[in-house]
Amino acid sequence: MNQISTISFIGSGNVATHLAQAVKAAGMEVKDVFSLHKKHADILAGKVEARAVGSLAELQRDADLYLLAVPDKIVEPVMRSFLRVEGVVAHTSGITPMETLHNMSHYGVFYPLQTFSKGKDTDISKVPFCIEGNSPDVVQSLSDLATNLSDTVYEINSDQRKYLHLAAVLVNNYTNYLYRMAFDILDAKQMDTSLLMPLIEETYAKIREMRPDKAQTGPARRKDLLTIEKHLLLLEEFPQYKELYTLFAEQIIKKYS
Amino acid sequence: MNQISTISFIGSGNVATHLAQAVKAAGMEVKDVFSLHKKHADILAGKVEARAVGSLAELQRDADLYLLAVPDKIVEPVMRSFLRVEGVVAHTSGITPMETLHNMSHYGVFYPLQTFSKGKDTDISKVPFCIEGNSPDVVQSLSDLATNLSDTVYEINSDQRKYLHLAAVLVNNYTNYLYRMAFDILDAKQMDTSLLMPLIEETYAKIREMRPDKAQTGPARRKDLLTIEKHLLLLEEFPQYKELYTLFAEQIIKKYS
Repeated sequence: MNQISTISFIGSGNVATHLAQAVKAAGMEVKDVFSLHKKHADILAGKVEARAVGSLAELQRDADLYLLAVPDKIVEPVMRSFLRVEGVVAHTSGITPMETLHNMSHYGVFYPLQTFSKGKDTDISKVPFCIEGNSPDVVQSLSDLATNLSDTVYEINSDQRKYLHLAAVLVNNYTNYLYRMAFDILDAKQMDTSLLMPLIEETYAKIREMRPDKAQTGPARRKDLLTIEKHLLLLEEFPQYKELYTLFAEQIIKKYS
Repeated sequence: MNQISTISFIGSGNVATHLAQAVKAAGMEVKDVFSLHKKHADILAGKVEARAVGSLAELQRDADLYLLAVPDKIVEPVMRSFLRVEGVVAHTSGITPMETLHNMSHYGVFYPLQTFSKGKDTDISKVPFCIEGNSPDVVQSLSDLATNLSDTVYEINSDQRKYLHLAAVLVNNYTNYLYRMAFDILDAKQMDTSLLMPLIEETYAKIREMRPDKAQTGPARRKDLLTIEKHLLLLEEFPQYKELYTLFAEQIIKKYS
């Protein structure tokens, strides 16, 4: 199997955008960018000097790699209308089994364990890539590509990867939502949210040095029901956040009793 | 009112330990360290060349500041048996109103908005101190002390401070518990938890650049019910974490619909 030097992207969202720019910067060619919304494909294609296509049938058939960077729930539907190609077809989904791509000759997974947002640069070299392939050759090709982009590349099977994806949702999506809750509360009380930044930094710094079960502090950890009650009173003003607060407090009290 | 140069600590836990060492390092004298568990007082007193006492009656009466660094729920009971002194009496609690100390002549709040753990050094200069006092003199004295220790000092009243404390619980205690959930899952599946570190770092890095409502990504943000269902299936093995996962997903879906 050839080294991967030409790549087409199926999808033009955050993941596709960050990856396409990274492979382009690493010296590879981006051939096509497909999106059902042709305008979105145009934008990304413009950034990486590729061709934008609005239907799967228009994809050139000679790319070394077709990278499906689409929402998890779209991987299967897209594959159903995907024409068989000789190049490697890989998806970037954490939760989708590799075998979803089994109609292809060469297929695999190229999962960047990271959160990507518009308007926020991400240092791809620090992103762990989780690789899987339907043959040692595919694993090798995808690993070589990932090693070109990043310092950390792991071979992870579909079963492990889905738990990793679940864990990622907890530490990123749900942590970010806790930030949102806290910011909403300070906004409502006319306080500067930057007051919280050193605490947020320390919470992150701690987990580099100690296990989270040891790092746990706070009223629930101390079973300080009086403080928890006071917080619940304050949350009368933020009823949408009361249930999450309560459930965390209950769970932590239970874990540490 | 004199500048604060001698301080006695009521309490010998994480907050007292970190603060006592910081004021000592900044050139102040730590006079007494009180703990109901005399042995705990001995340990901290040994570290900062202070006297350890096991009853409040033994406290020397001539300290410039008495700092109550005890669990929130103990502040009031301690104050009931505290003899009136001429020095400033301040507590370090986020949730306790300043007026809990109203039997003293000079009183206030000296709240470090940070999480402290045994075995993890904390850079006190980066800790925001929230100050309140029953007179401009007390505010000045406590602010001067805080400025000696830290780059960031705020005057925050009791009403604002309790919301700040609630927000702190969300971004630290509950975020840390999400880390624990994720680590538990990877442990159970024999995966290296360091895989998650770049994602945890990026989650923190994002909030320095963008508001959390904009930084939100993930299946719930995209209303990807299929992925959420798959996660819930995985969580059958971790039933204690299922309810929190579900509630977060529901709330985020609702917020972004």
